[in-house]
Amino acid sequence: MKIIETPMAPNPRRVRIFMAEKGIENVPFEQRDIMAGDFKEPAFTELNPFQCVPVLILDDGTAISESIAICRYFEEVQPDPPLFGEGALGHALVEMWQRRAELGLFFHVTQVFRHLHPKMGHLEVPQVPAWGEANKGKVGDMLRIFDERLRTTRFIAGETFSIADITALVAIDFMKPAKMTLPDGLEGIARWHSEVAARPSAKA
Amino acid sequence: MKIIETPMAPNPRRVRIFMAEKGIENVPFEQRDIMAGDFKEPAFTELNPFQCVPVLILDDGTAISESIAICRYFEEVQPDPPLFGEGALGHALVEMWQRRAELGLFFHVTQVFRHLHPKMGHLEVPQVPAWGEANKGKVGDMLRIFDERLRTTRFIAGETFSIADITALVAIDFMKPAKMTLPDGLEGIARWHSEVAARPSAKA
Repeated sequence: MKIIETPMAPNPRRVRIFMAEKGIENVPFEQRDIMAGDFKEPAFTELNPFQCVPVLILDDGTAISESIAICRYFEEVQPDPPLFGEGALGHALVEMWQRRAELGLFFHVTQVFRHLHPKMGHLEVPQVPAWGEANKGKVGDMLRIFDERLRTTRFIAGETFSIADITALVAIDFMKPAKMTLPDGLEGIARWHSEVAARPSAKA
Repeated sequence: MKIIETPMAPNPRRVRIFMAEKGIENVPFEQRDIMAGDFKEPAFTELNPFQCVPVLILDDGTAISESIAICRYFEEVQPDPPLFGEGALGHALVEMWQRRAELGLFFHVTQVFRHLHPKMGHLEVPQVPAWGEANKGKVGDMLRIFDERLRTTRFIAGETFSIADITALVAIDFMKPAKMTLPDGLEGIARWHSEVAARPSAKA
């Protein structure tokens, strides 16, 4: 088993934090260079026709792409601690908050980066700067909703740390390369961020 | 229990098809009008601060948003037939393909619609026509990848119908309101589409 990834990209970081929370340490990481075009090589495209990382390669050669699919695999082979919730309702609510964190926050931050950062011009074709700018407003709107949530709950999906916190943490930390800063006054997010960023897994 | 939705929107259709596949018929649907601004009303915003449908309301008042979270809830309360795969590897691979269908296809089709359709101007602020146009190319690229897949497998995630097929079917059917047509020569997609569109659930 091994994971093919890119150290600086946000999606692989989600998987590394998830594995650290589970205490899974015996899976080697193999680095590829997205900026050098490694993802477009035929051998990698065969593993993942969508040409993105991370990809988990099982011992029999099966390739699992998509960060959340990889996390879900580890959740089942090592259920403790549960990071996707528990029971039908718990699973649904964590899925809801994970998707809100991803589609509402993570996605918009990465769009700012991909459409406005000069280094991304050869990967995001065409770059649409007006779309990058529009996403800054969307990030702001979403941060206010998450801030309100985090004034009443300890973690994003409730009182237990989950995959939704991992996605939101990685999204907010990725605001820095996207050249955005957290607006002042988001006390709920600030309290939550200081707590989740202090977990040992955040260094993964 | 009830579901708040909008009949013409693609996300509610995913849930209706999913429920039809499960034979779940006893959950009433309540319609809201997205074009009239119903989602921005305070009572609805309290149910879903992200202001979108569908929302499943349980008998105790718990609100579950996000189509895939709602589907996952029904998957657990009524496991037969399984639509999210079976076993750790099966679950991971269906998750992978569901995400590819959603992020790779469904999302880009809806972006074409939201950023180019004049009627969406008051909901998608700001509309960025250049981004709408860019997504037409992304849809084309993704269709070719799915076409290649569907020349070798019966369904998107393999030999069994799954949530990934539902997402891809709804995405491809939503190309019509987005004023796009399937390119010629996609024989894998054409064969698959005629099979999944003929299932009774597709009328849901």
